[in-house]
Amino acid sequence: MKNFKLILEYDGTAYNGWQRQAEAPTVQAEIERALGRMTRSTVAVIGAGRTDAGVHALGQVANFRCNTRLGPAEIIKGLNSLLPRDIAVRDCRSAPEGFHARFDAKSKLYQYRILNRDTRAAVGRNYAWFIHRPLNVKAMGQAAERLVGQHDFKAFENSGSPRVHTVRHVVRATWVEEQDRRLAFQIEADGFLRGMVRNIVGTLVAVGLGRLHPSEMDPILAGRDRCQAGATAPARGLFLVEVKY
Amino acid sequence: MKNFKLILEYDGTAYNGWQRQAEAPTVQAEIERALGRMTRSTVAVIGAGRTDAGVHALGQVANFRCNTRLGPAEIIKGLNSLLPRDIAVRDCRSAPEGFHARFDAKSKLYQYRILNRDTRAAVGRNYAWFIHRPLNVKAMGQAAERLVGQHDFKAFENSGSPRVHTVRHVVRATWVEEQDRRLAFQIEADGFLRGMVRNIVGTLVAVGLGRLHPSEMDPILAGRDRCQAGATAPARGLFLVEVKY
Repeated sequence: MKNFKLILEYDGTAYNGWQRQAEAPTVQAEIERALGRMTRSTVAVIGAGRTDAGVHALGQVANFRCNTRLGPAEIIKGLNSLLPRDIAVRDCRSAPEGFHARFDAKSKLYQYRILNRDTRAAVGRNYAWFIHRPLNVKAMGQAAERLVGQHDFKAFENSGSPRVHTVRHVVRATWVEEQDRRLAFQIEADGFLRGMVRNIVGTLVAVGLGRLHPSEMDPILAGRDRCQAGATAPARGLFLVEVKY
Repeated sequence: MKNFKLILEYDGTAYNGWQRQAEAPTVQAEIERALGRMTRSTVAVIGAGRTDAGVHALGQVANFRCNTRLGPAEIIKGLNSLLPRDIAVRDCRSAPEGFHARFDAKSKLYQYRILNRDTRAAVGRNYAWFIHRPLNVKAMGQAAERLVGQHDFKAFENSGSPRVHTVRHVVRATWVEEQDRRLAFQIEADGFLRGMVRNIVGTLVAVGLGRLHPSEMDPILAGRDRCQAGATAPARGLFLVEVKY
């Protein structure tokens, strides 16, 4: 069977996340439906990251196996005409038979966007977390630095979804201030626990508001206790940017 | 009576333009409804520019006269809590009694955004015109330069909405290529005819596709004939950025 690798962009606002569910609309289900129509067969799509409800992607990677005469260029064109406007295919390539989008991923890069000004936005309101109190971006950067390296991130894992292994290697974690007080947090790691980016961002925002000192990241990590970390940042600010293999 | 000046941001996707209409939802009607609730009176809001259906604003200016004890800070806060999420108040100031948002405007700045790449976007799909064929941005810039200065812009006015005076002074008209083949056109003038920016952009895109030579802007202007100019660019790429007084 042929194996194809897809690069996907989506606006997660209207979806109950990536993963197929019986009732709610999901990104995976939309893509499987479109591929089913194109190939007249049942196609299972494997995503690299199971993004949560409301989370966006600029570079989600997925693969699917299928007996089809269609080539990658036809799959791009076909999917982009069949998929809803909030899901787009950026690229499609033939992949080695054994390629698995999730298991083969070496690292993932996420971005989290915050709009930190007096008044809320209307344009792009679904693409950032609006915080009107001034954030200390320098302190948030210092706190983020303490996450880089190999750590047990259990404190930033959603409760109710425990993994056996909670040690992950964070390659980078940096804040950039763009124009008009738009803040962008980039975090890359070899893997992420459930809710990890949003729980980290919520904690870094507590630092930015002066509620936590940057050095307090160390005992929070060491404590492995979700309750010691900050609140969960809203889904709308989060983007899966890139998956590396 | 007190007079207030508002600076407004809105996502025009869901609205039938700025101007109040009997049936369809408009930005002006939403603001008047919210002000009516806050002040328990009938308030008429005057906008600087009557943006069309689907057109956005980052800095629309409006004014309204009202007998109210509320101050500007309370008006900002109240409106931002009452207005739908796709309309936001960026600022409110007390204005001189005679201030009129439309008549007193000295110039307006619009931006038009194009996404020029192989595949369509999902994130931000309502904020740019997607064109997959490669555009010659240099030629579009040369063509835009020919619009700068005082000209009769009749050729770029929507038919069916004639103005007596069709001469306008364009202060600047430039294309900027941002990252990932995002093109942004900035045009500032002392006034705009109905549909003028979108009709200009449609014509500049014809230049970018090689259908027109930049020098053909001169006979198109001179001809004063809408049919000689290019097609109308879609509303979703257009933003009213700033109104100067």
